Amino acid sequence: MKLQSLDELFIHECKDLLSAEKQLVKALPKMAKGAANEQLRSAFEEHLEQTKTHVERLEQIFSALGKAARAEHCKGMEGLIEEGSELLEEDADATVKDAALIGAAQKVEHYEISGYGTARTLAELLGHKEAIELLQQTLDEEKETDQKLTQLALSELRVEESHAER
Amino acid sequence: MKLQSLDELFIHECKDLLSAEKQLVKALPKMAKGAANEQLRSAFEEHLEQTKTHVERLEQIFSALGKAARAEHCKGMEGLIEEGSELLEEDADATVKDAALIGAAQKVEHYEISGYGTARTLAELLGHKEAIELLQQTLDEEKETDQKLTQLALSELRVEESHAER
Repeated sequence: MKLQSLDELFIHECKDLLSAEKQLVKALPKMAKGAANEQLRSAFEEHLEQTKTHVERLEQIFSALGKAARAEHCKGMEGLIEEGSELLEEDADATVKDAALIGAAQKVEHYEISGYGTARTLAELLGHKEAIELLQQTLDEEKETDQKLTQLALSELRVEESHAER
Repeated sequence: MKLQSLDELFIHECKDLLSAEKQLVKALPKMAKGAANEQLRSAFEEHLEQTKTHVERLEQIFSALGKAARAEHCKGMEGLIEEGSELLEEDADATVKDAALIGAAQKVEHYEISGYGTARTLAELLGHKEAIELLQQTLDEEKETDQKLTQLALSELRVEESHAER
């Protein structure tokens, strides 16, 4: 990794995000399979399709800058996915496991929200107009996914709680 | 890890956060030392003091619930800190390195924002009143730190850019 200019830092951040998204493309089908709630499974499947688009957008950015779209292994995402994988191996109550999976997925979303936020700020400072737009689109989608997961957690857990109160 | 009830998930999330905060207490002095910009160094030092308080708040929650305050190693934070450590070893331009350090620190903040958000939601569902308040206080401080880091990045990089334009 070379960090002599903001341009190099921008490329580094995009390579890190590319690795993060690619790791997520592999992890999301497992998370979908592990989800008991139908809506949660659909949400993971839908986010998988979005994530593939996020990979394409990053590739477009590299192409616009005349750089090879090479991922740099993202250790942050690796740790987050490992946390999620451990949950999948647990012999847990279905609703509790879903709540735990949502929590793990939101940590992944927040990683990306932070990474895309940094990349977009750098793109603005560097005047990479095409990149700004593409990064903003993905950033908005990651934030929407995070909010959707919060809503899903609340609705699923409140239903569960009202059952328990009977 | 046992996940048979929401209470167990809540305790698991708090143990994960305790590990994350303790790892951060060790990492922040190195990040402060690696920062070139005086304001950034102060921000890291200030956040170290806050982080120590966050550890204490988690310990208070365990004590209120009659549980031992035992951390469960948080792999997510481990990966994030590793990413930050790699940056510290780079022979980079001082401003670029500061910008990279800010990006790494914001990923850490977002991990915590997500984790405390999940823990607070669970505390609400479970009716753990003391915990709700303590978790919310920390959550607010993590969000403030994230915003402060964005401001610092923008002010430092814009100054740098105007120098480069001369």
